[in-house]
Amino acid sequence: MSEFDLIKRFFYWDSDDAQQTVGNGDDAAVLSIPEGYELAVSVDTSNVNVHFPEETPAFAVGHKSLAVNLSDMAAMGATPRWFTLSLSLPEYDEVWLSEFSNGLKQLAQKHNVHLIGGDTTRGPLSISIQIMGVIPKGKARLRSQAREGDLVCVTGTLGDAAAGLAVIQERLFLPKNKADHCIQQLNFPTPRNDLSHFLIQHAHACMDLSDGLLGDVKHIAKASDVGVIIDAEKLPLSPVLKQLDTQQAYEWALAGGDDYELLFTIPADKKDVLSSQIKQLNVSITVIGSITKKIKGVSIQNLDAFQISGYDHFS
Amino acid sequence: MSEFDLIKRFFYWDSDDAQQTVGNGDDAAVLSIPEGYELAVSVDTSNVNVHFPEETPAFAVGHKSLAVNLSDMAAMGATPRWFTLSLSLPEYDEVWLSEFSNGLKQLAQKHNVHLIGGDTTRGPLSISIQIMGVIPKGKARLRSQAREGDLVCVTGTLGDAAAGLAVIQERLFLPKNKADHCIQQLNFPTPRNDLSHFLIQHAHACMDLSDGLLGDVKHIAKASDVGVIIDAEKLPLSPVLKQLDTQQAYEWALAGGDDYELLFTIPADKKDVLSSQIKQLNVSITVIGSITKKIKGVSIQNLDAFQISGYDHFS
Repeated sequence: MSEFDLIKRFFYWDSDDAQQTVGNGDDAAVLSIPEGYELAVSVDTSNVNVHFPEETPAFAVGHKSLAVNLSDMAAMGATPRWFTLSLSLPEYDEVWLSEFSNGLKQLAQKHNVHLIGGDTTRGPLSISIQIMGVIPKGKARLRSQAREGDLVCVTGTLGDAAAGLAVIQERLFLPKNKADHCIQQLNFPTPRNDLSHFLIQHAHACMDLSDGLLGDVKHIAKASDVGVIIDAEKLPLSPVLKQLDTQQAYEWALAGGDDYELLFTIPADKKDVLSSQIKQLNVSITVIGSITKKIKGVSIQNLDAFQISGYDHFS
Repeated sequence: MSEFDLIKRFFYWDSDDAQQTVGNGDDAAVLSIPEGYELAVSVDTSNVNVHFPEETPAFAVGHKSLAVNLSDMAAMGATPRWFTLSLSLPEYDEVWLSEFSNGLKQLAQKHNVHLIGGDTTRGPLSISIQIMGVIPKGKARLRSQAREGDLVCVTGTLGDAAAGLAVIQERLFLPKNKADHCIQQLNFPTPRNDLSHFLIQHAHACMDLSDGLLGDVKHIAKASDVGVIIDAEKLPLSPVLKQLDTQQAYEWALAGGDDYELLFTIPADKKDVLSSQIKQLNVSITVIGSITKKIKGVSIQNLDAFQISGYDHFS
């Protein structure tokens, strides 16, 4: 099967995007950006055995490759609209391609984002997606926008994906339903694009958590030139993680990575808006700390209770 | 060296782009598209030992990875403005990174395109660049715009890159200066972005030649629903190729690939504009054929003279 046939068969599933004036198959796609909007652009690559184990189901690889990019758009407050796909494959594998394509397509259609181009090459399995979204001019939520007195909030729960990886790598043994929960969180992260409207209206700084809370939140402290105080006791843990060894659970929640939850700051007087938001949206939001000018960097409080050491280098 | 340090050291070289409102280092870059313009988007991936031999100098890999993307913008008539880079590296190699970065930077600065984001991952050497350019609304040059009576034109010369690959792979032996010419054409293609203004004003269909003239021109025939007649005697060959075995030279010119020249069609009455353009720009343009409604697909004339067979399946 030629590259053209392969693309046609597995990656042409829609063409009803009114803002795309030139589609797949020319030298480039051509897009109209609505007036009053800016374009947000991000790229994320997933390599086999680096970002996902070789035995990861193709459907999950398709889902997650796009999910991590949608998460970057959510972190900016941007509405994702289009993406390109660069796919390297060791060989033509119809079953794998079909499942990968389905995982990608289901999530793309759910978020109304359009695959506008890409290329397929022969090589070790690697998926590079560049995503583009639109955002009202000047409204992008940046890491540099945290202000003194802000509350620090996080969506969902933390550490489940890291536990899922430990299950797959046989470092953690759990009953099947708990193991399934963690692997599901690892393979099928839910990008928090539902929050974009709220974030643009009310949040200050925002970012998504990909490398682990402790490493990631440093970027907000640095970019905003503020201190971030996190209360370890407030970190949102799933019922599964709460039943694990406490130290292990908190290590994953703090530094496990692959959460793809949003971390954002809002003015303290927006607490009521936040509460009503939590009720409206199908996502939990937890206040885990605050922004201060009294320190620099990140300080984790109440960590002793969990007998965790070795995190000094993060503060 | 962490990913952040690596990016900072080798891939932060400018920040003077007035239309980029959020730079590298946030979850996404944010760009302003000027009013009245559309956005052209394309992506091209280069894998070691697939798209370039392992021994290719890093400077050349950096140049060519961007050049092939600039060429896609040229083919649309778009002005390239920004690109993202996704780089997979087997190991941290300072010398390689420094030379790769220099090759990329020199070409980027020459064309005034800005590196706005990307990621670096561990894996087999692979470079995926997505390029974005702007184009006045409705002015994109498409493969579907060829019209009956158009002249078919091509820039530069054809087949030198394929000869260069043959030299590297020791299938062709040439004196050093001629070998150097061919390898130079292979490693340092010149994207024809200088022609964009002319193309937008005067050309009908346009595309760039990456897989070889014969395979590529079929796309114009199909997308425009026309026949393309190419006169093999008119194919532009470099002095080096003219001195090779005729059959071999024409096989490379017709089907060698990696030329990154532009193929475009213009109305026959624009011949004078074309001639004056050729004098103004530092690039040769050759009329090699015409567009007709009398046949479908591609017909190569005067091929018998070169005793080339086996190309029937292209017509």
